[in-house]
Amino acid sequence: MTRVFNFSPGPATLPEPVLRQAAQEMLDWRGSGMSVMEMSHRGKEFMSIHAEAEATLRELLAIPANYKVLFMQGGAIGENAIVPMNLIGRTGRADYVLTGDWSKKSYKEARNFGTVNVAATAESSKFTAIPEQAAWKLDPGASYVHICSNETIGGVQFHWTPDTAGVPLVADMSSDILSRALDVSKYGLIYAGAQKNMGPSGLTVVIVREDLLGHALPVTPSAFNYKTQAENDSMYNTPPTYAIYIMGLVLQHVKATGGMPAVEEHNRAKARLLYDFLDGSSFYRNPVAKEDRSLMNVPFWLKDAALDEAFLKGAQARGMIQLKGHRSVGGMRASIYNAMPTEGVQALVQYMKEFESQHG
Amino acid sequence: MTRVFNFSPGPATLPEPVLRQAAQEMLDWRGSGMSVMEMSHRGKEFMSIHAEAEATLRELLAIPANYKVLFMQGGAIGENAIVPMNLIGRTGRADYVLTGDWSKKSYKEARNFGTVNVAATAESSKFTAIPEQAAWKLDPGASYVHICSNETIGGVQFHWTPDTAGVPLVADMSSDILSRALDVSKYGLIYAGAQKNMGPSGLTVVIVREDLLGHALPVTPSAFNYKTQAENDSMYNTPPTYAIYIMGLVLQHVKATGGMPAVEEHNRAKARLLYDFLDGSSFYRNPVAKEDRSLMNVPFWLKDAALDEAFLKGAQARGMIQLKGHRSVGGMRASIYNAMPTEGVQALVQYMKEFESQHG
Repeated sequence: MTRVFNFSPGPATLPEPVLRQAAQEMLDWRGSGMSVMEMSHRGKEFMSIHAEAEATLRELLAIPANYKVLFMQGGAIGENAIVPMNLIGRTGRADYVLTGDWSKKSYKEARNFGTVNVAATAESSKFTAIPEQAAWKLDPGASYVHICSNETIGGVQFHWTPDTAGVPLVADMSSDILSRALDVSKYGLIYAGAQKNMGPSGLTVVIVREDLLGHALPVTPSAFNYKTQAENDSMYNTPPTYAIYIMGLVLQHVKATGGMPAVEEHNRAKARLLYDFLDGSSFYRNPVAKEDRSLMNVPFWLKDAALDEAFLKGAQARGMIQLKGHRSVGGMRASIYNAMPTEGVQALVQYMKEFESQHG
Repeated sequence: MTRVFNFSPGPATLPEPVLRQAAQEMLDWRGSGMSVMEMSHRGKEFMSIHAEAEATLRELLAIPANYKVLFMQGGAIGENAIVPMNLIGRTGRADYVLTGDWSKKSYKEARNFGTVNVAATAESSKFTAIPEQAAWKLDPGASYVHICSNETIGGVQFHWTPDTAGVPLVADMSSDILSRALDVSKYGLIYAGAQKNMGPSGLTVVIVREDLLGHALPVTPSAFNYKTQAENDSMYNTPPTYAIYIMGLVLQHVKATGGMPAVEEHNRAKARLLYDFLDGSSFYRNPVAKEDRSLMNVPFWLKDAALDEAFLKGAQARGMIQLKGHRSVGGMRASIYNAMPTEGVQALVQYMKEFESQHG
């Protein structure tokens, strides 16, 4: 068996020890005589798995007690509607900050549920920078301000937390949750699809301050009503049990390997390797403002797009896959989430050097 | 390793060969160097898994070409809202037939999206029978008629297909899809959470006739818009990839073991074993009308509820779990989905005999 270096933007590579444990426990979870997939979500075995996953997430991210943690379905794109359904009812208005494709998608979807204002947009820079806070036009009567903390396509990331003057800050953290230390208390709500840093697709984590619950619009489906799910410990409907189990294993792995400080340091070192190389090269380029570069998704372009296919083919031959850029922007993209080892980034940089010396 | 006989109403027991294959492929799916969990949903490996799962489902259920098969999230409880969001817009009205807790839940949720009529209800019989078609009060202007083909709590099941005089028939088949032969062409839409007969929780299958698409209400989230998902081969957002993979393995297993005729015969034989025993006993009872009894979920009550705990404890000691009835009705319930082997039902009947002879 040879494992590849998988640079997929998500679903993405997972820690090998997690996969080994999942394989080993597949037919019989700890003497229960069942796979986790087969367990009733209301049985004591799965209840313990569910509770431990939540407790570990709370511990790793230091989630304050006045926040609920919900395990839901529908991914971040589902949440693009579910967030306004649940939150916009307080005042009927919301602010959105546009930093790329994902936040634009969130904004468009929200317009079905109230009056939605663009508080700031980086469109004029082609989304290569995060708009400075001073330029944001915030509505003090907004129900919330929405940002996407990391844009996987453009490769920009917030490296500071906006000050929204008391209006709840809502963040789509799908692609950088669990990648660095986080002060949850600065947010009203955080949501994230699990399939980048936390586990398999099909699981959405929502962290929501309790006082924001209870404003759902009447069209909110019960399964997607935060208050209903909070009151039922995310078991109003059958949760995605196996995905929660895998996330729990990933969280345990993060904890065992040093927690958020170690993860963040690891991610910063990996990203530095790649950006330093890009900045020193005239063959490859990354157009993002240095202070706004993503530690998770590194898009880059070859000098000549005619070489793209050869680059990808050579990478594949060396066991490095999913480096093709998003179809909307072309070029390359290396997604280097938590579970991408340093060796993967080293191998990529080494290959990029060789390719440049052959084709530069 | 000792595997239990798991009578859980869902998530439920899965075929052991499926679990063995999943364990074996966990770290490296067929030489790809990745777990299925780690695959980009847009990569060729997962695309082939997705396509094969759909093709096998189409083959097993003989799904006509003018039906779309969608792989979604949110479970049947999510669909309780998603169905009216997508379908009620045509006329603004829908008919619901109430046969137990699940269809009642569907009905209540639908009322947020239009005028919803109870076409028939079995409430007067305490949901121990399916209401006769002759008594249904159908609205010819309804956008659809909704039924639940099998009620897991009451243990009643449709053994005939309603004639709705051209109005599209919508069925929640969460708990009996893939358990017997099915004429899909008699339905406008079928939906089912996967976690009984098809795979893990977190995956919802929707089979919808193409001409019903395109009537979604403006509040329908994009991720839950059938037309949007149909146009994007269920990849408008990241699908629950691992659950789709496991479902694909289950479907292959069903195909390899004889397809729907063999599955149906197996299920009928298992249910007969249990119902014949119940009917011959004065210690246990099942109150459901014989012609409406579920082949999937068999609720039964002991003569004396004071013996329930002892019954469950003895079952557990013999490796039979999750036999406790739903908290709303008490008693016992044996869920005997596809993957429950005959030996499991035989062991249960044997134990019930012994328990009766000791306590009867």
